[in-house]
Amino acid sequence: MAVYTHVSDEALAAFLAEYDLGNALSFKGIAEGVENSNYFLETSKGRFILTLFEKRVKADDLPFFIGVKQHLAAKGYPCPEPIMGKDGKALRTLEGRDAVITSFLEGLSPRRPNVVQCRGLGEGLARMHVALADFGMTRENALGPASWPRLWEGRAANADALLHGLAGRIESDIAAIAKADPDSLPLPRGTIHADLFPDNAFFLGDDFSGAIDFYFACTDALAYDLAVCLNAWAFEDGAAGEAAGLQFNFSKGAALIAGYESVRPLEPAEREALPILARGAALRFFLTRLVDWTDTPEGALVRPKNPLEYAGRLSFHRKVTSAAGYGG
Amino acid sequence: MAVYTHVSDEALAAFLAEYDLGNALSFKGIAEGVENSNYFLETSKGRFILTLFEKRVKADDLPFFIGVKQHLAAKGYPCPEPIMGKDGKALRTLEGRDAVITSFLEGLSPRRPNVVQCRGLGEGLARMHVALADFGMTRENALGPASWPRLWEGRAANADALLHGLAGRIESDIAAIAKADPDSLPLPRGTIHADLFPDNAFFLGDDFSGAIDFYFACTDALAYDLAVCLNAWAFEDGAAGEAAGLQFNFSKGAALIAGYESVRPLEPAEREALPILARGAALRFFLTRLVDWTDTPEGALVRPKNPLEYAGRLSFHRKVTSAAGYGG
Repeated sequence: MAVYTHVSDEALAAFLAEYDLGNALSFKGIAEGVENSNYFLETSKGRFILTLFEKRVKADDLPFFIGVKQHLAAKGYPCPEPIMGKDGKALRTLEGRDAVITSFLEGLSPRRPNVVQCRGLGEGLARMHVALADFGMTRENALGPASWPRLWEGRAANADALLHGLAGRIESDIAAIAKADPDSLPLPRGTIHADLFPDNAFFLGDDFSGAIDFYFACTDALAYDLAVCLNAWAFEDGAAGEAAGLQFNFSKGAALIAGYESVRPLEPAEREALPILARGAALRFFLTRLVDWTDTPEGALVRPKNPLEYAGRLSFHRKVTSAAGYGG
Repeated sequence: MAVYTHVSDEALAAFLAEYDLGNALSFKGIAEGVENSNYFLETSKGRFILTLFEKRVKADDLPFFIGVKQHLAAKGYPCPEPIMGKDGKALRTLEGRDAVITSFLEGLSPRRPNVVQCRGLGEGLARMHVALADFGMTRENALGPASWPRLWEGRAANADALLHGLAGRIESDIAAIAKADPDSLPLPRGTIHADLFPDNAFFLGDDFSGAIDFYFACTDALAYDLAVCLNAWAFEDGAAGEAAGLQFNFSKGAALIAGYESVRPLEPAEREALPILARGAALRFFLTRLVDWTDTPEGALVRPKNPLEYAGRLSFHRKVTSAAGYGG
């Protein structure tokens, strides 16, 4: 649910006058994206998405995010294409927020992805990496291992309150990954999405139809992106609910990796690093969710996601020793 | 903001299979309507709105609401047209909720309606009344004067907490309207929208392009619908904010009434009753907002609207003695 900033009629009309898109025929706040305000916008020229960036996205990062989408769209990769104003600029200001209009992408986000969709997602991820291979801009992964001690600081009691004994295990995870130092490994690096959850992927039936929400995109190990997707796509909740009964679905993991490798085969070093990257990815989402869980006032408009879902994934990753452990 | 019920991929596909609409190409929760969950739905056959009815709408009332829209749409009146399933039925079940698909209506809801839009709204309201003159179904106004003592019961202290001395004035209003007994007046009656706020009206530029959200529609005095609109369209917030500094804009009131009368001239009895009907309409919205304000737990997902906006309107209506007081 994500409409934080309201747009007045006059402000919208003045904003659209800076584009060659005609007048608005429809304008509806949509529940897409968590960090920003998003509107469905229809004009005589077609359908678009208008995004207003809320405070969690740094203004300095916006040219990178927009550049990624422009680069992908120019190569025919299915993603929201930033629309240029009459001045040739995609990024401008609306209601005091940085704002951008992008093309409308067809497709539905799967709520419970099936095996065929996992394969399609793997293919789509690899195609994204290939299409971005010659992208010229870089951005450090602000949520990489270097950021974790800062995220973790002072939260041990919160973790133990969620699940007795959890804090010690999280500290072991942080230490183990610091020791493995994945940033120093000889892994192919490039531009990654870094947040390609089912919410951010579209399908038409079982066919991958595109990726959205590039607001965590950064320069990092390509296999880390695959590790994020293994966490986000190949685990299933047990009957008991959100955190309990979590299971890794090997068919989904295998399909995801096979789909990826059908476009871009993994190097031996990437296969070897997959368990530590997957553990790192789970830790990254555990920590940011823990921060949101702890810092969000009770009864806030946006309900934070349960960090325990990622504590469960960490338990699984700790025991995996090779890519084969994920079906790869 | 209104997406309460989530729809799984499988449930949506099974639901759409009951229609002749093809498969979903896009499906996004939208921030439209307050009582229900609404989704933008695109299929190969076009764009639609999918509504799931939440608990506040009584299932027994749905055939009436759907009938109103079918009747209006059949006459070419711009409103969401219920789409029939293959079985000829518009109302079915999705994710345990009553659900309906309607056609997509172009237009934008004005945040701050201007005088020209107020005239267009008045015309659009009168056209609706005329189009519904031969509608055969009836529904009692569940929020008419008979319901007010029940809404008010036990809330006097809440009203005084909002504004010192308010409870006594509200009790005078309830008594004055009970004495005037608007239900007994010889006013033309028929099917009314009863909630045609700017949120529920669409415009393309300054041209009225349709009405949505018929979930308070009922059988009542036609002039009461105009009175609701005078409350909702012709008052303006002062610089001081939501409740303080509220002002009636005579140009907007006059435009609204003139627009209405350009299609359906008011009878003398309606002109005479306008002040008591407008006071009653303000009281109805004050009371339902007071109930929501009092009953909504602090920090709930949906923020209740401030009842004081309608206490301010009541202060105005108490002094009006004729339709001329509204610019009519």
